[in-house]
Amino acid sequence: MKLSYELLKEEKHTKARLGQITIRNKTFSTPMFMPVGTQATIKTLSPEEVKEAHAGIILANTYHLWLRPGEDIIQKAGGLHKFMNYDGPILTDSGGFQVFSLANSKDISEEGVRFKNHLNGDNLFLTPEKSIAIQNKLDSDIAMSFDECPPASASYEYLHNSIERTLRWAKRGKEVHNNPNQALFGIVQGGPIEELRKYSAIETVKLDFDGYSIGGVANDGEDKDAMYKAIEYSIPYLPKDKIRYLMGVGEPIDIIEGVIRGVDIFDCVLPTRLARHGNALTKYGKINLKNSQYKEDFTPISPECDCYACQNYTKSYIKHLINCNETFGARLLSIHNIRFLIRLTEELREAIQNDNILEYKDNFIKNYYGGNDE
Amino acid sequence: MKLSYELLKEEKHTKARLGQITIRNKTFSTPMFMPVGTQATIKTLSPEEVKEAHAGIILANTYHLWLRPGEDIIQKAGGLHKFMNYDGPILTDSGGFQVFSLANSKDISEEGVRFKNHLNGDNLFLTPEKSIAIQNKLDSDIAMSFDECPPASASYEYLHNSIERTLRWAKRGKEVHNNPNQALFGIVQGGPIEELRKYSAIETVKLDFDGYSIGGVANDGEDKDAMYKAIEYSIPYLPKDKIRYLMGVGEPIDIIEGVIRGVDIFDCVLPTRLARHGNALTKYGKINLKNSQYKEDFTPISPECDCYACQNYTKSYIKHLINCNETFGARLLSIHNIRFLIRLTEELREAIQNDNILEYKDNFIKNYYGGNDE
Repeated sequence: MKLSYELLKEEKHTKARLGQITIRNKTFSTPMFMPVGTQATIKTLSPEEVKEAHAGIILANTYHLWLRPGEDIIQKAGGLHKFMNYDGPILTDSGGFQVFSLANSKDISEEGVRFKNHLNGDNLFLTPEKSIAIQNKLDSDIAMSFDECPPASASYEYLHNSIERTLRWAKRGKEVHNNPNQALFGIVQGGPIEELRKYSAIETVKLDFDGYSIGGVANDGEDKDAMYKAIEYSIPYLPKDKIRYLMGVGEPIDIIEGVIRGVDIFDCVLPTRLARHGNALTKYGKINLKNSQYKEDFTPISPECDCYACQNYTKSYIKHLINCNETFGARLLSIHNIRFLIRLTEELREAIQNDNILEYKDNFIKNYYGGNDE
Repeated sequence: MKLSYELLKEEKHTKARLGQITIRNKTFSTPMFMPVGTQATIKTLSPEEVKEAHAGIILANTYHLWLRPGEDIIQKAGGLHKFMNYDGPILTDSGGFQVFSLANSKDISEEGVRFKNHLNGDNLFLTPEKSIAIQNKLDSDIAMSFDECPPASASYEYLHNSIERTLRWAKRGKEVHNNPNQALFGIVQGGPIEELRKYSAIETVKLDFDGYSIGGVANDGEDKDAMYKAIEYSIPYLPKDKIRYLMGVGEPIDIIEGVIRGVDIFDCVLPTRLARHGNALTKYGKINLKNSQYKEDFTPISPECDCYACQNYTKSYIKHLINCNETFGARLLSIHNIRFLIRLTEELREAIQNDNILEYKDNFIKNYYGGNDE
């Protein structure tokens, strides 16, 4: 069976849920955070290090792999798993989000999106059929439908038309999807508007996908209320026996709020991006190791953390590596930050088990925002 | 005992020798290649990966660690081993070579060298006493005497005066050396001139160090004959029961020629530097993975290589990583290149054991220079 989701338990006071996903004989628990391996590598890490972080599933970007090295080379290599030497579950996005956020001179039509790629400006054309064909060749475990990601500020009329087109695109993609080992997810859009989220969710579910994503929320950036509302507007119309994936979200508090609203999986470049800038996530907030206070701090980033970085290195040493632009510094921080977010989802699972996720959240907030250096 | 060298066997037809070094209870065989961890990290690698490459000893740079993070911080951390989480043997250089090659506005006097550092132009003053004091605090296993590294093109008179001063510097350094767990090596200079190399070697040995280096040969760059001659002029005057270390040399052929002339250990940034530029060392020569011929090459860099990169990844994947500037690419190539040079020294040890090192060299040259893409 290519994918199964088993709902194990619902938390007593919220919509949070404990689940188990099995993909091609690999099983992992949800809620789960997915590290992002944009270019078929989780930046600075080996596949073994990703597994040591207890990652259940990772994400790779269809847009980037389409441009380099190209889906045909990855297919010839035996698929993405073999190409990058990672035998755990891999989800690929549709490329849509990158086309809308990275590419230039976009021209959206019923057929698809014409654009100039961000590497060399070459004209390219991405359609629902093309996105699925690429993902079929990549042979990821989960493929995403090709959708439009309109800005949250778009008009009601624009958002409505966009949803209708995204539904037609989802249908076209599903029709050409022909990798029997690969699951295919639909995506709920609708911006910040309740009626549109509801409509998008109901109509997408009618198309009967293997799982459902909530898209277009990472666009809202700092408007966290709008993000949480968009989740609340979408979730009630998604089937309980299917996975719910909140795309592009990875701030610790947003993961917690997402889980409380019924989300199962999350992805974000946050942990590796923070790492490259010298930042570490801790239960007492984000710290920047460039700060001079860590110069002679011979303690680990987080004494309670079980990651390789915290078990073996001091803040003083990691600060030195970051100061000297040594990539081992970004690697140690990436290991720590990814493990931090996955450990967060582990703790959320425990809180669901104990029916105390709201207390967990209050306590997390008190620690995380209670007077750190950010 | 802080350091012992045991001469196990001399090759029948050359001066090549098999030995065993024990440093603070860690033992390794020679000839041996030392990876360079300039800033207390072998670029892109973890200490575990360095050990997996079968490195017997690594080198760290006193000049860089003096500037960042400073020897006092490393001392407070418990010494370099603890600071960088590496419990194998570590050799530190004297800082002299970096002052002469990296720093600006050098002013050499009997007392030491005044210069502006390469990071922020601050005025600094490095003396034999200061170099040894820094190394004592770093608590490396082997410290090097502070020497002048004059250009190979310097006049006879300059070289002669420089040797005399380097001898006085070596004596001053030895007098203040006060780390009982740390060995101290002397350095033979003398440029390309037989008489000066002989004089420098004899006089340095009179000062009675724990081991001896041959310095000033990496300066010669492409003049390999001059390099090999400088080794030949120095070795006969070095005691057989002490380690001989050729500084800054790491081209495969130079390691072979050095071993044949009686050298035990080598260091060079070559393997990690080549890696960052997409180059891999193979028995059939250096290859550059940026070349389009590797786009669909789904074989490892070297099928016979036992390193993590060759056991798990294809040229096609590593090429993709290098093309995308993903640091995991440089990491895989660094792992491979370091293992390549250490494996070269393993094969040289076997050739010494079998008394066929000249055949080994001929065969190596035939393969390495026999029509690769360089």
